[in-house]
Parts: sequence; C-alpha cells; structure tokens
Amino acid sequence: MFRTHTCGELGLGDLNREVTLAGWVQTLRKFGSITFIDLRDRYGITQLVLDEAQNEAQANIPLGREFVIQATGTVSERSNKNLIIPTGEIEIRVKQITILNKSVTPPFTIQDETDGGEDLRMKFRFLDLRRNPIKRNIELRYAVNRAARNYLHLNQFMDIETPFLIKSTPEGARDFVVPSRMNPGQFYALPQSPQTFKQLLMVSGYDRYYQVVKCFRDEDLRADRQPEFTQIDCEMSFIEQEDILQMFEGMIRYIFKEVKGIDYTDTIEKMTWEDAMWDYGNDKPDIRFGMKISNLKSVFKRKGSAEADGFLINNAGFQVFDNAETVLAIAVPAAAAWSRKQFDELTDWVKRPQIGMQGLVNIRYNEDGSFKSSIDKFYSEDRLKAITGFVNAQKGDAILILSGKEEKTRKAISDLRLELGERMGLRKNDEFRLLWVIDFPLFEYSEEDNRWVARHHPFTAPKPDQIATMINNDPLIADATRYLRHPYADIKANAYDMVLNGNEIGGGSIRIYQRELQEKMFDALGMTREEANHKFGFLLGAFEYGAPPHGGIAFGFDRLCAILGGSESIRDFIAFPKNNSGRDVMLDAPATIDDKQLKELNISLLTSR
Amino acid sequence: MFRTHTCGELGLGDLNREVTLAGWVQTLRKFGSITFIDLRDRYGITQLVLDEAQNEAQANIPLGREFVIQATGTVSERSNKNLIIPTGEIEIRVKQITILNKSVTPPFTIQDETDGGEDLRMKFRFLDLRRNPIKRNIELRYAVNRAARNYLHLNQFMDIETPFLIKSTPEGARDFVVPSRMNPGQFYALPQSPQTFKQLLMVSGYDRYYQVVKCFRDEDLRADRQPEFTQIDCEMSFIEQEDILQMFEGMIRYIFKEVKGIDYTDTIEKMTWEDAMWDYGNDKPDIRFGMKISNLKSVFKRKGSAEADGFLINNAGFQVFDNAETVLAIAVPAAAAWSRKQFDELTDWVKRPQIGMQGLVNIRYNEDGSFKSSIDKFYSEDRLKAITGFVNAQKGDAILILSGKEEKTRKAISDLRLELGERMGLRKNDEFRLLWVIDFPLFEYSEEDNRWVARHHPFTAPKPDQIATMINNDPLIADATRYLRHPYADIKANAYDMVLNGNEIGGGSIRIYQRELQEKMFDALGMTREEANHKFGFLLGAFEYGAPPHGGIAFGFDRLCAILGGSESIRDFIAFPKNNSGRDVMLDAPATIDDKQLKELNISLLTSR
Repeated sequence: MFRTHTCGELGLGDLNREVTLAGWVQTLRKFGSITFIDLRDRYGITQLVLDEAQNEAQANIPLGREFVIQATGTVSERSNKNLIIPTGEIEIRVKQITILNKSVTPPFTIQDETDGGEDLRMKFRFLDLRRNPIKRNIELRYAVNRAARNYLHLNQFMDIETPFLIKSTPEGARDFVVPSRMNPGQFYALPQSPQTFKQLLMVSGYDRYYQVVKCFRDEDLRADRQPEFTQIDCEMSFIEQEDILQMFEGMIRYIFKEVKGIDYTDTIEKMTWEDAMWDYGNDKPDIRFGMKISNLKSVFKRKGSAEADGFLINNAGFQVFDNAETVLAIAVPAAAAWSRKQFDELTDWVKRPQIGMQGLVNIRYNEDGSFKSSIDKFYSEDRLKAITGFVNAQKGDAILILSGKEEKTRKAISDLRLELGERMGLRKNDEFRLLWVIDFPLFEYSEEDNRWVARHHPFTAPKPDQIATMINNDPLIADATRYLRHPYADIKANAYDMVLNGNEIGGGSIRIYQRELQEKMFDALGMTREEANHKFGFLLGAFEYGAPPHGGIAFGFDRLCAILGGSESIRDFIAFPKNNSGRDVMLDAPATIDDKQLKELNISLLTSR
Repeated sequence: MFRTHTCGELGLGDLNREVTLAGWVQTLRKFGSITFIDLRDRYGITQLVLDEAQNEAQANIPLGREFVIQATGTVSERSNKNLIIPTGEIEIRVKQITILNKSVTPPFTIQDETDGGEDLRMKFRFLDLRRNPIKRNIELRYAVNRAARNYLHLNQFMDIETPFLIKSTPEGARDFVVPSRMNPGQFYALPQSPQTFKQLLMVSGYDRYYQVVKCFRDEDLRADRQPEFTQIDCEMSFIEQEDILQMFEGMIRYIFKEVKGIDYTDTIEKMTWEDAMWDYGNDKPDIRFGMKISNLKSVFKRKGSAEADGFLINNAGFQVFDNAETVLAIAVPAAAAWSRKQFDELTDWVKRPQIGMQGLVNIRYNEDGSFKSSIDKFYSEDRLKAITGFVNAQKGDAILILSGKEEKTRKAISDLRLELGERMGLRKNDEFRLLWVIDFPLFEYSEEDNRWVARHHPFTAPKPDQIATMINNDPLIADATRYLRHPYADIKANAYDMVLNGNEIGGGSIRIYQRELQEKMFDALGMTREEANHKFGFLLGAFEYGAPPHGGIAFGFDRLCAILGGSESIRDFIAFPKNNSGRDVMLDAPATIDDKQLKELNISLLTSR
C-alpha cells in the first residue's frame, strides 16, 4: 500500500498520528516559506503543510496541479479550520514527499465549475471524471445499481446472464450486427433487449429473473440517446399486472430510500393512457404540477365519445377556432397580471418551428372578476366566462388556448404546459412524483404499410377480455380510411409505463404465452408464417412445452440515474459516453480496420474510405 | 398472483390450510380412481392428490407431463411420507385444477439423468434448463456473482460500467467488430476485456473498480471455450502486488464461505512460475496431490543453473536417454504392485497422438527393497537405486520416466501426472486447493516475427528492479539463435495467476503507469510509435496527467463457477451457451441478414452465400 489512510478520513481523533497519504495535488499555495497543498483522492481532500525546512528540501523538485504524490507526516490541528469538509479540522505536517507521477497542465480545471467545454471534456473524459459533479453521478449510479440488486435479491429474483451475440430480428429499431468469421456470410446481432431470453427463462421455470444489462440500438441519435444503454431488466411468472406494479413500485421506493434517503410513501397514481393523452397531451405526464389540459374541441375520443365538440367556441365568427380540428386550453395560475410582453414572449415561443403553432390566444380572468382576451372582438364576456368556467380557471388566472390539427396541437400544448412549469419553477429537481400509465393501445396504425404495428413490442398481451377479439378477427385493414373502425383499433394492452417527473423510467407488459395468440400477433404485424418461424421459431416452439403466464418490466437505468441525480442529461451519468454521432471521441472510435480483418470476416466495404 | 405458495414451502405446519399452487406436472400416477401429481416449480415439488370425485371432474381434461397447471386444495398429512424432499410430509387434496398451458411431449425427459443427447438438449435449451442439475448450476452462478459483489462492495469497490462499442486494437486475440452505419467504413470492436478502461478509471481517481462483465474473443474455439464469456474484473490504485494478492484471496475465501459453506483458512501458497514449470510441468499446477516431477535431465534452467544435467542416466548405453534433450520422472505411490497390463495401458496412453511420446520407462521399487525396471538391461541395481533416491520414491512406488524434446516432454509428463491423479481418485470434485503462481516472464519470444510478445498483456509492469533493464536496453533481437541471452529474456513481470485445482481462475498484474515505460513496451512488441499512438494514444495521453500506481486482476467467472460446481465444463454453467462452432443452435445464430441491412452498413459479402 502506498498509503495508511485515505484523504477523506482523518480528523481530530487522529492528532499526532504519523500517517501516509497518496493522491493528486488539487491546489498548491505558497505563503512565504510555507506551502499548503490540498491533496485529493476518491474519498476527500486533506491539507498538507510543508514548513520552511521541507520547503527547502523540496525546492528542486517542482510540484504542480494533478501531480500524484505520496506524503508522510503528522496529523495536526489546524489553526484556520475549514468546517465545510470532513477533514477540515486537521492538516498533515509533512516530513517527506515522494512524487509518484507528474502531470502536464490539464486542458481544463479540475473543479466543480470547470472552464472546459463539452468537446474538450469528452476528449479528456478521464480528467472530467475527476471532477466532483461527475464523480457524484458515477457514485449515485453505483448506489442505484446496488439498491436495485439488493431489493430484487430480497424478493427472490435471480440475476441470469443472457447472450450478447444473438440473431438479428429487426422489428422497429435497427440491430447492430457482428460478422461471424467462423460462419462466413452470417452475422450475429447485439440485443436490443434480452426480451425473448427472459421469456424463455420463464418457460424454463426460473420464475423471477433480473439483469442490469447493456442493450444496443442502431438508431439515428437524438440528443441524449446512446447507441448502447443499460436496462434493469426483470421478468416474473405466475403473476398478473397488479403484481408487477406492486413489486416494482416497491423497487423504486427502495431505491428512493437507499439512495436519496426519501420515504416515498404516497400512493402511486394509475392513469390510463387515454386520460394521460386527454389531460396532459402526452403519455408520460409530469404531475409535479397541475395545469391540466381542457379540451374545448377535439377529434380525440375519450372513452369512445366525443366529449369536446367545440360548442363553447364554435360559431363566434372566429374562423381560426371554427376551422380547427382541435382547440385546447390550460389555465395558468395567477397569470392574469402578466404583462403584454410576457404573453408576446409565449406567443413567439409557440410560433417557433419546433412547436409550429400559428398563434396563442389568451383570456385573462382578472382578480376583479372581469375578463380580457386577445379574442375580445369575437367572444362576449358571457362566452369568455363560460370558457373560463369550463377550464376551471380561478380569479387571477390566465387561460392559454392553442388550436390546429389534433396531433400537433396536443403536442404543442403539452410542450407549452411543461415550458410554463419550467418558467414558473414548478418542476423542481428535488421533488419526485411517480405515476403508472396503463391501458395502452395494443396496436398503432402504420399509414406507410397500411397495417398494424405493436405499440410496445410483439410479445405484449392484450387485455384478457380482448383476446377473443384478437383471435376471431382478421387483422387485415381492408379500408385504410376507416382503420379506426377495425376491431383491433380498440384493443388495449396489458402494458404499463412507470413515469417519474415527466420521464418514462420503465415500461413493460404481461406477455403472450400461447402459441396461437403469438402467431396471431405476428399475422397482425404483417409477418408471414415463414418469417415468424425464421425469426422467432424458438419462442413459438417454447410456447408448446408448457409456458407459464408471465410478464415483466425494464427500467432505463441511465435515465433513472439522471433524474435521481436531478439532471436531464444521461451522458453525465455514464462513465464513457458517446456523442450524438455515436462516436467515442476519447478513443476515436469507431475507426477503420485492417483489410486483413475485413477479409477474414468475408466482407468488403461498398464505398472506399 | 396465480398462487398463494410455491411448491417448495409447505409442511406439516400448514395442515388444513387452503392453498393454491402453480407449476409444471413432473409426474402423473393413477392408482385406480385416485391420481397423484408431482407439481414442480423453481422452489421444489409438492404432491397433489385427486380423489375419485376430482378424478371424475377432470376425466375429460387430459393432463400430461410438463403441462402448466394451477391447483387449489387443502394441505394434508401424507400417509406415505417422502423424507428426501422438504415438502414430503404433506400433500394437497385438490378441489380444483386449472390448466394454464398445455405441453406436447418433450423431446427428452426432464429428469436429473435425462435421455437427451447434447445436441438435442442445446436445441431445446429452455427445457434443459428445467432439469435440476442445470438449475443448480445457474443458481450457483448467481450465488457466486452475489458473493463476489458483496465482498467487493464491503471493500469499497465500485461497479462502473465500461463501453461495449469500442475501438479495434487487436493484439494476440482477434476482435469481434461491429460496422457503424452512421460512420460508413468504420467499425466498433467488442471488448476482449475492459483493460484500458479500468486503467483510465484509476487515472480518474476511482481507486477501486469492479465489474461482472461480458468479454468477447473471436478465436477458433477449442473445447469449452465460448466466444463471449464473463469476467469479474477488478482494479485498484496505490497498491503493490502483495495488496492485490491479499484482497483477492479474501474474495475467494468469502465466495467459498458464502456459496459452499467452506472455511478456507489454509495459507495460500505462492509458487514462482519457474518452480511451477520445473515441479509440475505447467503454469497452473493441481496441488490436490503430489507426484512432483523429478528432472533427471533438462534444458530448462532453474534459477539460471542447469541442475538436471543427466548424470544419473547418461552413458548407460541407453541411447533413448543419452540422446534426449530432457528426461523427466514421477514417483507413483504404491504402484510397484501394478500389473504388467496397467503399465502397458499407460504406455499406450502416452503414445496416443495427443501426447505423442515414444514410450514410457518404469522402475518398480518393490516392497522387499528390490528393483525391477523396463530398462534393467542398461541400468544396474545401484543406478536404479540412485535414480529412485533422487526421485524420492518410497518402497512400493513405481517411477515413470518420459524422455524427448523439452517442451513436449514436459507437457507430456504434466498430462501423465494429471491422468494418474484422475485414475487414482486424487482429483476430488469436492476438494479445493488454491495457489498463486507469480513471477511470470514479462516477455515470450515469437519465433515467427523474431520479436518479443507480452506474456500477460502489454500493460503489465516488470518487477520494479528490472524497469531499468527494460528502459536501458534495445528490445531488438539481433541474433535470433541467441534470444535467450537478450536482457529482456530474464525480465520478470509483476503478474500473478490464481489457480484452483489445476485451473487458472484469475490472473492479473501490476500495470505500467509511466508513459516512457509504456512506450518502451510497445517498442518491444514491435509497434511503431504511430501504431502505438493510433491504438493506445488515449492511454499514453492519460499517463501524462497524473496516473497513479495501480494493478488489478480478472477472474474467469464461467470457469470459477464450473469448478465450484465440481465440473470441468463451463457450458453447463451458462444459461444460453454456444457450441464449438460459435453457434447458438437454439436461436440458429449467427444467420444471414437482409441485403438492405448490408447496404445500410456500407458492406458487402466477399463470397456469396
């Protein structure tokens, strides 16, 4: 050992002990003939003092920031105590210093607030990782990992490793593939998830499975997506949906307690997908704050009936609303008193191309009970009052209204709501609100192919009472314009997402475990029987040998850590992340490979380099 | 929940409770109007009894082996108790049975001893996994995983995930590569180990790292090698070799205790590589039994001197020994009384092509003190006695002698020793003997390229007192015939292997952490500076910014589990293994991929399918 103690553990109880520490020079301050060094390691910072004699002995050995040194000396009480850090009451009076390794000047400062830009920090990630904010993230990630494992272990789950070199079965996302040298012309695929394997493990009787596991998706990367990402992947047998929800609520509560010290004892609300879309405009509502959407007019049917037929706003001579497919409103608390400038800013905000609205209507419900609106000339005070009442606005609130095509407008008002929440400080990093979204549609309609696609994945079971609907109807969509009338359009899935602060942190479903139903699902997705057998024959086969009822869930581990760490960026919670082009700029990967390697793999490049 | 209890937990304490179980039909026995079912789940087996009425109700619902059923009934005492299983004192008097899923007849019996061959069991791995022996292996694997993690956690190690899509830097083993769609013509590589990343984490100050992590090597597969395998990968900073040995002895002791209930309190012997080769003929000796090799003649120098010059055997007129480069002997306890047939069998065994010896000489040191040998006519009783004394044989022992070229003969006698240990029952599955092998040579000589190759890997440090030898000498081998005289031939590495029962279960080293020394190492391996910078520039760069002294170890997790499970086959300890051609026969992977996929990846096949 190069040390007797770490830089985070010595205190007044250790006075006069002779100790040896090793670590990095964080700072170096000379006061006349005395030098102070802040020595840093993973565990903390300890102050070293070199007196006049030591300073002289050291004179010809230059020290600098980030040098790795070993220092032996005596623990002494500091005259000038620093009570912010645990070791701030003592210092080490140094008798000997050994330089273990030198450092050139780092390209950015190793401080909480660094002067290094994103690109530079990524290139020198090994230095960025030294900074406290990043180190805390990596430590938090480990704590979440450990807590999840402990909870799952306590609940009889077993970590079982599934293979990484598997078969390419692209559905939706693209696979990364790996050419096989020993099987020329053939390729492995890297798993997008261990889905089929965990289902096979249920067929094998393993009952409760988990894995903290890397998954791979070759997607065009949006901001904050990684080509490789980590899942907490779980599956259970002999359970129903409610059992899964309880088990994994328990896991998240356990993680909150262990990692954040938070007793999350609130009941976790269950919201149907339909309600989420209707009230929040998206399927992962941030329920840390209200401002639910009021549907003044909508083509979206709630529980099958057109509740919002527009009677409050139509036929007032305001063509914009009359012609709109959808008119949606939110009441913003205490916003009636906002300045003209504030409303104009918001109007500009919704007109940005990312949102793409034509304008933003407002109705101010003043404290004195009067109404003022940007559409005063079309709507009488009575009509404004009726709208205000419908939207449940209180005196002092302002109502913001967007109109246009259904999907775009709903997304826009959802974005506007979140933006307002942000501006009004209602989305606090240290407040956590969990939510289950349930009853997702089993299918979505693919206009491009005029067929169904699985909303979750092809292994998700329909609600038990809708299995017959699925089995007894032909999935073929005869009339594309009337696809919503097809019986499949109304089938709900036994699927669920866990949402934390407006982010989907986990999702799963009860699975199909009957061959007939699984084949019907593949039919519905437009797969021929041959295709289905080629891709998933092993699973269909397995279902013939006594597959138990089962279901599971997978948590996005990177995202979960980021949110628990109070950040929206997953990259800061991954030790060695890739950039938005899928590159590791530190390694400079991907890179070209030798022609010899290509030849061994029986492949060539289509375009030359 | 489909059950109130599992099939492994009910006993006499639960009498008269109404319970619901779910699981698989293991056996079905009809005695007249009564049916007995052994119901199986992950936790055990419980007997169900269907009385006459139930049997009648069930009459039209055929049940069979491996059907998944749910049964409700009352816990009753068995008249005919089975004390071998925990639930053997009770049975469930069934009131209702529901078939959850049917099963066709499995292709082999789901029994401890199955009638299924290897190929069939691999194709239907999900059924093979139901069998107890395999299930116990998977459970043991999880227990080892859990114990290792707990020990490392208790010792301040952090699990930090390293990337899977990295850069191809083939040294030795071949990389699996992954074409990048977003960076046409470029490839990621899958890691052969997280080696450079864990070193970077040390540079980042993380101090104690671990990971239970998949690694990948595209090698021609020998028996019992897998293209993807799992390592327990660890690294520490500010330590010396002895610190690592102690820390990881501790881990293995902890695993023994937690997983096997064994208090492994014996001191773990440290054996130099030289002694291992000299005394056991290989670098991973099985020390569960003796029969060390005696070197009658050898070109192998022990501690630099030719100890075995052949004086005991040369010049007796026996040309075979006179002309041999090496003559090696082992004394086999109580083998003097073996029959002629037994010696002949062993002679045939060493003559097999896998061993390739010309013959096997024996000297029997009889209980009456007389000597009898297959080379009587060349050697007088006195000379036989001298050899016997040198070999340390006791009365009643037989000495077996092999001769020939050094490397081949040493390997042959090592194999013979292990074979004898096997035949004599000295290699017990339930006896565990650990050993450290240390002081490996840093370099091996590559005849093909007339240059040095790293015995462990290019990041391994030489012994501290040999750093100067490495720095101050030119690695170039001017005269290939005299490579042993090159100063590099004698450099020992700060490297260590942990050996369990004749298997290397872990290996590691103290690492180079100085740029100059690392560059010298790359020079020695024949890498140009450009190559070194292209492949490992990030690491060389990192060494300039304050790299601490560090070292680590990696355990072969699959192998470790197999040995702890008393097996030599790692495949039985992997849920979904690949066969010797690297194929997953269950998935039928690798497989061809679509032309569209190839095109997107900017590659084409050299030979058509």
